[in-house]
Amino acid sequence: MAEQKKMVDDITAMDVDFAKWYTDVIKKAELVDYSSVKGCMIIRPYGYAIWENIQKDLDARFKALGHENVYMPLLIPESLLQREKDHVEGFAPEVAWVTHGGENKLTERLCIRPTSETLFCEHYKDIIHSYRDLPKLYNQWCNVMRWEKTTRPFLRTSEFLWQEGHTMHATEEEAREETLQMLHCYEDFYRDTLAIPAVVGQKTEKEKFAGAQATYTIEPMMHNGVALQGGTSHYFGDGFAKAFDITFTDRDNKLKHPHQTSWGVSTRMIGAIIMTHGDDNGLVLPPKIAPVQVVIVPIAMHKPGVLDKANELLASLRTKYRVKLDDSDNSPGWKFSEYEMKGVPLRLEIGPKDIEKNQCVLVRRDNREKQFVSLDNLDEAIEAALEALHQALYEKAKANLVSKTFTARTHEEFLDIAKNHPGFIRAMWCGCTECEEQLKEETGGVKSRCIPFEEEQVSDVCVCCGKPAKHMVVWGRQY
Amino acid sequence: MAEQKKMVDDITAMDVDFAKWYTDVIKKAELVDYSSVKGCMIIRPYGYAIWENIQKDLDARFKALGHENVYMPLLIPESLLQREKDHVEGFAPEVAWVTHGGENKLTERLCIRPTSETLFCEHYKDIIHSYRDLPKLYNQWCNVMRWEKTTRPFLRTSEFLWQEGHTMHATEEEAREETLQMLHCYEDFYRDTLAIPAVVGQKTEKEKFAGAQATYTIEPMMHNGVALQGGTSHYFGDGFAKAFDITFTDRDNKLKHPHQTSWGVSTRMIGAIIMTHGDDNGLVLPPKIAPVQVVIVPIAMHKPGVLDKANELLASLRTKYRVKLDDSDNSPGWKFSEYEMKGVPLRLEIGPKDIEKNQCVLVRRDNREKQFVSLDNLDEAIEAALEALHQALYEKAKANLVSKTFTARTHEEFLDIAKNHPGFIRAMWCGCTECEEQLKEETGGVKSRCIPFEEEQVSDVCVCCGKPAKHMVVWGRQY
Repeated sequence: MAEQKKMVDDITAMDVDFAKWYTDVIKKAELVDYSSVKGCMIIRPYGYAIWENIQKDLDARFKALGHENVYMPLLIPESLLQREKDHVEGFAPEVAWVTHGGENKLTERLCIRPTSETLFCEHYKDIIHSYRDLPKLYNQWCNVMRWEKTTRPFLRTSEFLWQEGHTMHATEEEAREETLQMLHCYEDFYRDTLAIPAVVGQKTEKEKFAGAQATYTIEPMMHNGVALQGGTSHYFGDGFAKAFDITFTDRDNKLKHPHQTSWGVSTRMIGAIIMTHGDDNGLVLPPKIAPVQVVIVPIAMHKPGVLDKANELLASLRTKYRVKLDDSDNSPGWKFSEYEMKGVPLRLEIGPKDIEKNQCVLVRRDNREKQFVSLDNLDEAIEAALEALHQALYEKAKANLVSKTFTARTHEEFLDIAKNHPGFIRAMWCGCTECEEQLKEETGGVKSRCIPFEEEQVSDVCVCCGKPAKHMVVWGRQY
Repeated sequence: MAEQKKMVDDITAMDVDFAKWYTDVIKKAELVDYSSVKGCMIIRPYGYAIWENIQKDLDARFKALGHENVYMPLLIPESLLQREKDHVEGFAPEVAWVTHGGENKLTERLCIRPTSETLFCEHYKDIIHSYRDLPKLYNQWCNVMRWEKTTRPFLRTSEFLWQEGHTMHATEEEAREETLQMLHCYEDFYRDTLAIPAVVGQKTEKEKFAGAQATYTIEPMMHNGVALQGGTSHYFGDGFAKAFDITFTDRDNKLKHPHQTSWGVSTRMIGAIIMTHGDDNGLVLPPKIAPVQVVIVPIAMHKPGVLDKANELLASLRTKYRVKLDDSDNSPGWKFSEYEMKGVPLRLEIGPKDIEKNQCVLVRRDNREKQFVSLDNLDEAIEAALEALHQALYEKAKANLVSKTFTARTHEEFLDIAKNHPGFIRAMWCGCTECEEQLKEETGGVKSRCIPFEEEQVSDVCVCCGKPAKHMVVWGRQY
């Protein structure tokens, strides 16, 4: 137990310093390492395996909805980036510029893609001519780069991995449907795969994406009450199509501009998983994306029959689950805390006494609940335990979200909550950017997260200026 | 038939102009499109689906051999690239340099990775301390960039997609084993998945990778007799480890440098598939990586029952194969040539008469052989046809390789073959770089491909200088 204590002691407690807890966990669970490239992270095998599971799940969802994957160039010529005015204004300050190829200065600067709307539009102009060519439902998995001043692994890094969907449609209606469909696809994924609840809704004018007509967002709340923008889906109208001169001949033989969407999620999600489910013992991973779902720890390993039995269980379980057997010379206690640190959902202990009784011990990562299970029912017991764990993680996160969501009816209430209660604030808003800026200023960083789909008329006037309210907004600090 | 004729006519015949045939095929089969970024390609859905199938197959092979995926930064600081002398000399002339982040000039230039040995070494220095930390068997799937003057889609582009394995081992012996194991992994993949035979062996001193002690290569021959370097595997010794000061404490308690390998294949492989198996009707795809393995073409589609039956076949086959039903209004003849162009391995025709007889027609892409198959045996017939097609593609490519491989015993013979017979030349070599340079000069581009594992003493003297021969080398022009 001394060993076990020691490892846990290495992680700063969440309540003592949440930021320090976060960096302790990602470092000790071996998710990332730092590199000599400022603001860029190395994603280590355990972290990358989480990303691979995320990709596989999401990619299947996208394909089931008819999307196809493509790959666009990494670099964007400056003139191409400048084609859509709002877009370049949003991104130019934070892109990395390539100026030399080999020994030669380039005639035109190229930026490393911060996002690829411009490249997709250039391609769409080439391949869209008739209504028969629509819709185009493309997605790409790639790296992008945004030059950040202060960075934090997964949450904000100069380079990150993501997917960006870019679609073109014959009508506004169809494009708007796609925008919302993909937002809900993310919402389902967060709930059913990551066990993360979230507020979903529309971004205000001030917070929407550069060049978009409407931006929708999914905003989960981290354990400490801070929001993380978990994914966005944008409706562009025909703004880019006009800027890039993309037209098609419709059924009525008229030349029209198509309507466009884009939507994306990134490696930030791994940050959301850590900060939603983690605890003072380290990571807690939702079973569906855990690189190891069940770790087998043999007890009194050198006693006859124990390792054989452990290997037998490994062989029978690995056809269905991601299972690891740790038969290293480390003590069981060391192994217990190692895999708790790494957030492995289920631990299976098997020793001489268990073998005698044809049973094993299952221990859930979240509540450390122990269960003696007959080896005859092991498969069903594991399936049930993983499902129960997923559900418990979701309920716990939901309870955190609910308990840290407050309602402010007056300006005073708003400032008091912002000061004293970390979390989300539901409050009415008149619709003007000035009030958003004032509230952010007064609170040192509380911003509108979104106008949620589930609005409620909590008062009749704007919580900031007192003018008639247009919408309920969910406000909060963000990563 | 008029329509079908027209489409085929759109492709330049291979014998008329092989280069033009290649660009016609990749464009018309919708594998790639050009972009405004010089030398960079857009990989379209059909081309990217081939890459996804390649990735899935190779990734499973790597993981079965114990490798883990990671992700390293895109950018390499100039000082890091310069750490290993031979390596920087090899790559510095062809890298893209980032000099500005947002509005600010960087204090140090960063290059876009042309390959990631330096980044892996920096990380390995951090995480390798003891023999217990070895081996490290890492791989990454990513984009890289090498500033090319003349480019051709898939074959030579400034940006391309690849995988790069980087491993560290306690002993030279183990690292050398890994180097060869991964070369043979590629060889198996080329043969069993891509149906491509190849010459495998070791690169000469002149042709080896910048910084490597030994480079091994797999060299398939394209239809026109030109070689394509299909994949390489390098043994580095401890050169990088010393340059990066990577040490570990071995079992004997001594501080040692680990031994390193790297190995990679890229989207070039798609070029190899096209130029090995394609014909005057377009692409011919090996079944294991074909995005669509079977296309169902209904005949007399509007007759009662035909579409229902076609949909029924689709539903029953898609659980096992990648199947597409084309129920568009295009004529069957148009569909036949469309899917021939796209290289779909099997076409399944089903019409009213077939339904009456409880049969369908299967047509193989490579030889257009027609087969009437009872619907009761359809699954077995498809499996057998795909297997036979794979085998036939391999045999045809092997016959091409054999028939275009010549043996030169004298300098005169060598020059004659190089001038008049496209293909590979087997000839003896003394081991010195000057002879390689002279032969390349005299022939306008014939270079040593490799010293094959299967050597034969075809004469006793170097084909160039007449001095005693050390090795048989396979020579050839290359993409």
